[in-house]
Amino acid sequence: MEYRKIRDEGDDRETGIEDVESLREKSVLLSDAVLDNRLASVGETKTDSHMAKAKWKLKSVVTLALTILTSSQAILIVWSKRAGKYEYSVTTANFLVETLKCAISLVALARIWKKEGVTEDNRLSTTLDEVIVYPIPAALYLVKNLLQYYIFAYVDAPGYQILKNLNIISTGVLYRIILKKRLSEIQWAAFILLTAGCTTAQLNSNSDRVLQTPFQGWVMAIVMALLSGFAGVYTEAIIKKRPSRNINVQNFWLYIFGMGFNAIAILVQDFDAVMNKGFLHGYSRITVLMIFNHALSGIAVSMVMKYADNIVKVYSTSVAMLLTAVVSVYLFGFHLSLAFFLGTTVVSVAIYLHSAGKMQR
Amino acid sequence: MEYRKIRDEGDDRETGIEDVESLREKSVLLSDAVLDNRLASVGETKTDSHMAKAKWKLKSVVTLALTILTSSQAILIVWSKRAGKYEYSVTTANFLVETLKCAISLVALARIWKKEGVTEDNRLSTTLDEVIVYPIPAALYLVKNLLQYYIFAYVDAPGYQILKNLNIISTGVLYRIILKKRLSEIQWAAFILLTAGCTTAQLNSNSDRVLQTPFQGWVMAIVMALLSGFAGVYTEAIIKKRPSRNINVQNFWLYIFGMGFNAIAILVQDFDAVMNKGFLHGYSRITVLMIFNHALSGIAVSMVMKYADNIVKVYSTSVAMLLTAVVSVYLFGFHLSLAFFLGTTVVSVAIYLHSAGKMQR
Repeated sequence: MEYRKIRDEGDDRETGIEDVESLREKSVLLSDAVLDNRLASVGETKTDSHMAKAKWKLKSVVTLALTILTSSQAILIVWSKRAGKYEYSVTTANFLVETLKCAISLVALARIWKKEGVTEDNRLSTTLDEVIVYPIPAALYLVKNLLQYYIFAYVDAPGYQILKNLNIISTGVLYRIILKKRLSEIQWAAFILLTAGCTTAQLNSNSDRVLQTPFQGWVMAIVMALLSGFAGVYTEAIIKKRPSRNINVQNFWLYIFGMGFNAIAILVQDFDAVMNKGFLHGYSRITVLMIFNHALSGIAVSMVMKYADNIVKVYSTSVAMLLTAVVSVYLFGFHLSLAFFLGTTVVSVAIYLHSAGKMQR
Repeated sequence: MEYRKIRDEGDDRETGIEDVESLREKSVLLSDAVLDNRLASVGETKTDSHMAKAKWKLKSVVTLALTILTSSQAILIVWSKRAGKYEYSVTTANFLVETLKCAISLVALARIWKKEGVTEDNRLSTTLDEVIVYPIPAALYLVKNLLQYYIFAYVDAPGYQILKNLNIISTGVLYRIILKKRLSEIQWAAFILLTAGCTTAQLNSNSDRVLQTPFQGWVMAIVMALLSGFAGVYTEAIIKKRPSRNINVQNFWLYIFGMGFNAIAILVQDFDAVMNKGFLHGYSRITVLMIFNHALSGIAVSMVMKYADNIVKVYSTSVAMLLTAVVSVYLFGFHLSLAFFLGTTVVSVAIYLHSAGKMQR
């Protein structure tokens, strides 16, 4: 539950619609990014093939980072659960995650300003026109988080984990509708398989209970999946709308609104606890580790939105889920079920089909 | 167990290698078949497009027949189990299935002789060169059936049901190697999905036990899957080697050897029971129904081998498995599991990909 709340934060952050379609043709400028040292070499020989190669490399690096961070996120959760229940306020942890992300973005920006000077693309100041859409993903997240409390009246926690896989489908559908990007038929088939495979991998002896979910539960699960998918797709739209704009500036504005919304959440939900026991009550070393992990994952999500897309993000977090299970076998002596192997097989085939489907477009 | 024995009989019957590759170019003549009335109309206007259409229709009809027969087979099993354990000798039932198939083939042949007269293609007499390969599928089946008794030392019955899905993969691999027919990469992906999907659909709370199968159990399961796949592919090779030869003649020779091998099985396994209690001891109305069903399924398998192939057969029997579960909900009040829905989704996508993969070849 606590995990979910933090995790969703990291996942479903950020989003701007408008004619993003037109951006697809423009090549994304690579002059920004936290990973500026790996780009320094590219800066000199800006031939097209070099650009494409650097773009591909960058895409791979951020995707890999997201996969590893998401997967270690889940491992930290298991670890912290083993260490006993954590008694800190989730809202304060979320607030600190946003603050840390803001800080990291500013440090990265400072380094870039030192190197390249302040330009039109990396200046922090903004216009109302640019910034007006930035609070929307945080607001969508807030609504979704609110619904999360109500859905447990209809579904238990493991059931909700199963239903969360609807996010995959909703992301695909909204990606198609809002960003107007096309997936080939094979890629749609792959997306359905990804959903089925992830769900299969999570099956356990109690999973069938989810079939008894009442109608209201299904409606809420679908609405939540749509909110989550919409937040993700909207973040991609915001970030891709200005491809030359430095990602750290974009992140800064996304996260500053995140801080704001989380500050409100602290006031509403945990005001008494914070006043009586202090802001950092119940924090342990693991809590701090988790906050750092979530902050870095959040930045990785933004990077994937900038240099790849929501589809890559969904595949990446799905692989992370499987990776977590495998690593847990060694770390915690977990047993892998037959369902897990079958789910992993289906997800692997889905990944193959996604790239095979791309070629034939 | 008893069901398996009869069912495998129907499934894994029949098979001749040699240069089947050369047959692929020749168009399969449609002058034979039990379904001769639906072909009569075609006989007159033998244009190429008519031929292709008739071939496609025939392929669809036999595939549909196989699906329905296989699915009702499983329903008869459930029904007969509900009616109490059946106490007849399985070997005598198998023998009667082969005998009935022989009889049906002869009746169909008699009708064709009356209509078209005896020709080179529909005469019953044969050469040693033609008939020498016909006992091989029955022999492979005998070996596999023998192994079936030993594998239960390592795996329980539900575990064996799960492992039987290896048949799907082995059929695909042997189809590629022996018949030298190509599947596209997408079609291979579809085949892996079919295996994973069928297994997922069969998952239950005890399925994980199959992961504890000892090494010997796995080896036996793989050998049995190879024998089963080999028997199927070999039957297709035998039948397709002489495309103009009447299917009823080919069936007759396949089934006559089946009768022979089953007669030996009666002598070895059930001689005492048959001598003391009679050949038909323990037969009920359901037993008779099952024998008719198995005979018709067996003939449908031969037809699919003649007019389609092993890949179609595997898809057809997989769909039948899913169909059985759905029908059982209405007939017996079974509950469908979440795993069943996920497996069905994966199998459906596999079927789509199989045909999508065909187009891009």
